[in-house]
Amino acid sequence: MPQAADTLLLQLFAIFVWAKVFAEIFEQLKIPAVLGEILAGVLLGPYATKFVFPSQTIFSIAEIGAIFLLFTVGLETSPSELIRVGRQSLRVALAGVAVPFFLGFGYLKLRGEPSHEATFVAAAMVATSVGITARVLSDLQVLKTRVAKIILGAAVFDDILGMLLLALVAGLVSHGGIRWLHLGVLSGEAVGFALFMMFIAPRLVKRMQPGLKRMYTHEAPLILALAICLGLSVAASKIGIAAIIGAFFAGMVFADYAPQWDLHPKASAINEFLAPFFFFTMGARLDIRLFTSNRVLGAAVVISILAVVSKVLG
Amino acid sequence: MPQAADTLLLQLFAIFVWAKVFAEIFEQLKIPAVLGEILAGVLLGPYATKFVFPSQTIFSIAEIGAIFLLFTVGLETSPSELIRVGRQSLRVALAGVAVPFFLGFGYLKLRGEPSHEATFVAAAMVATSVGITARVLSDLQVLKTRVAKIILGAAVFDDILGMLLLALVAGLVSHGGIRWLHLGVLSGEAVGFALFMMFIAPRLVKRMQPGLKRMYTHEAPLILALAICLGLSVAASKIGIAAIIGAFFAGMVFADYAPQWDLHPKASAINEFLAPFFFFTMGARLDIRLFTSNRVLGAAVVISILAVVSKVLG
Repeated sequence: MPQAADTLLLQLFAIFVWAKVFAEIFEQLKIPAVLGEILAGVLLGPYATKFVFPSQTIFSIAEIGAIFLLFTVGLETSPSELIRVGRQSLRVALAGVAVPFFLGFGYLKLRGEPSHEATFVAAAMVATSVGITARVLSDLQVLKTRVAKIILGAAVFDDILGMLLLALVAGLVSHGGIRWLHLGVLSGEAVGFALFMMFIAPRLVKRMQPGLKRMYTHEAPLILALAICLGLSVAASKIGIAAIIGAFFAGMVFADYAPQWDLHPKASAINEFLAPFFFFTMGARLDIRLFTSNRVLGAAVVISILAVVSKVLG
Repeated sequence: MPQAADTLLLQLFAIFVWAKVFAEIFEQLKIPAVLGEILAGVLLGPYATKFVFPSQTIFSIAEIGAIFLLFTVGLETSPSELIRVGRQSLRVALAGVAVPFFLGFGYLKLRGEPSHEATFVAAAMVATSVGITARVLSDLQVLKTRVAKIILGAAVFDDILGMLLLALVAGLVSHGGIRWLHLGVLSGEAVGFALFMMFIAPRLVKRMQPGLKRMYTHEAPLILALAICLGLSVAASKIGIAAIIGAFFAGMVFADYAPQWDLHPKASAINEFLAPFFFFTMGARLDIRLFTSNRVLGAAVVISILAVVSKVLG
């Protein structure tokens, strides 16, 4: 075995163990475990104790971890449930986009930052970290509740609206004008993708069911679900929305068949292995030295508070 | 999401789907599925159709796949079973090392190759691909039989003996003499590791059991098993035996608790996701152009036949 693989295994071992040790300590203190996994990354990562410098491969494994996290959450979200809360989710998402956007824009304008920069920060504030949202709901064991479905649905719509807003802003900044046709194509693709996943894809899975029983492959339903999870992640990122949104839809499409095919515990197991790398590297990316400058620190605190307040309002 | 991740997801999707399509076709033709996954790698890899050039990350994921493959197989192998077949396994392993070594050595000597080269090829022939052995036994659904345990045990001893043989040969070639002390330390570490895993480690897991129940972490037994799997893989490769042998021992240590903690289906799920990357890249590494030279082709065929014949004899 080459030296490179040794280092990879050692990193996997160290990250997995430390993330889980912090998660356990946080659980005992009644704090969501996910915050422990992120803190492990902050403390042991390249910006603090420099104990672990995650390699590019670890970051890639982290991305796959995010995909399986959303896939697992999707498996617990039946399409009919998402459709039922759809209108409320959309309203929350619109407020969740509009309120932070204008608050963020206004704050940076007051500070006298140039307009372009203000628009970009505002657009970035829109992007809810769907991953953290999903994991916190799961840690609190409220994933099955109606409120959780509304929040999840809103996070999905948020990502789509955020993507469109970013395209709009990029258009404003780079060309001095909005490319309406481009924006129309983007919206059409994203909305079409979401509608297809909610209304048509679940029926296709239903039709595939008899065929699966005739297959010789061991664990055929799991293999099919994993293939579709990877495929929809690729498709989502091709049309400009986050890969994890594709993975969420992939899970949702199989949600109604998850109990009969025993998919949830199996996807969960993959998630238990990969998710710690996602949250650890999230922490490891955080450059704590950035906060040493007072000006940046002040702005970061105000922006964070505005983001939290406006999200809650939304 | 950066461009790099898009390419990674696309590669993961393409490799997973093609490996599984070939596996299904082979299953329908009553050929072990694993050969289909390897063939997919040969045909679509960089040396044939050049459809997929696996990135370094994919090769790393493949290594992790090999680890979970052996971990899953280990979970089905109780330590007491391995101890029971231990003597027979050791005899098979010794024959499996000695017969190919002398056959290979003799053949290359007859062809007039220099002695050093002959010794190296012979030592390489000793290394049974434990991964393929385990997967074929699993594909044939005979993993639970006594013969399968003997073969698996022999494969583990094979790796240890092969490592020692390689160290012996390397000593012969580079220093003109065998470093007996170095060899003694290596043997001591490897044999000590194997004995510790078979006799002491299972008792330690038994003692940890009550503590696990008091833990707050969701799926604590699975998390502990995964951490030990990664840790023993690192430990094994540190003392010079293959990381996958460490993973096999990690599985074995948990084998007696696997049913009660429901570990096997969960480890299996991770294995179902990762193993296709291991076998696909195994095929993708095979440079078929090497076989165009008649001289190499002839030697390869003879060496392969000798390897197979001597292994079966063993």
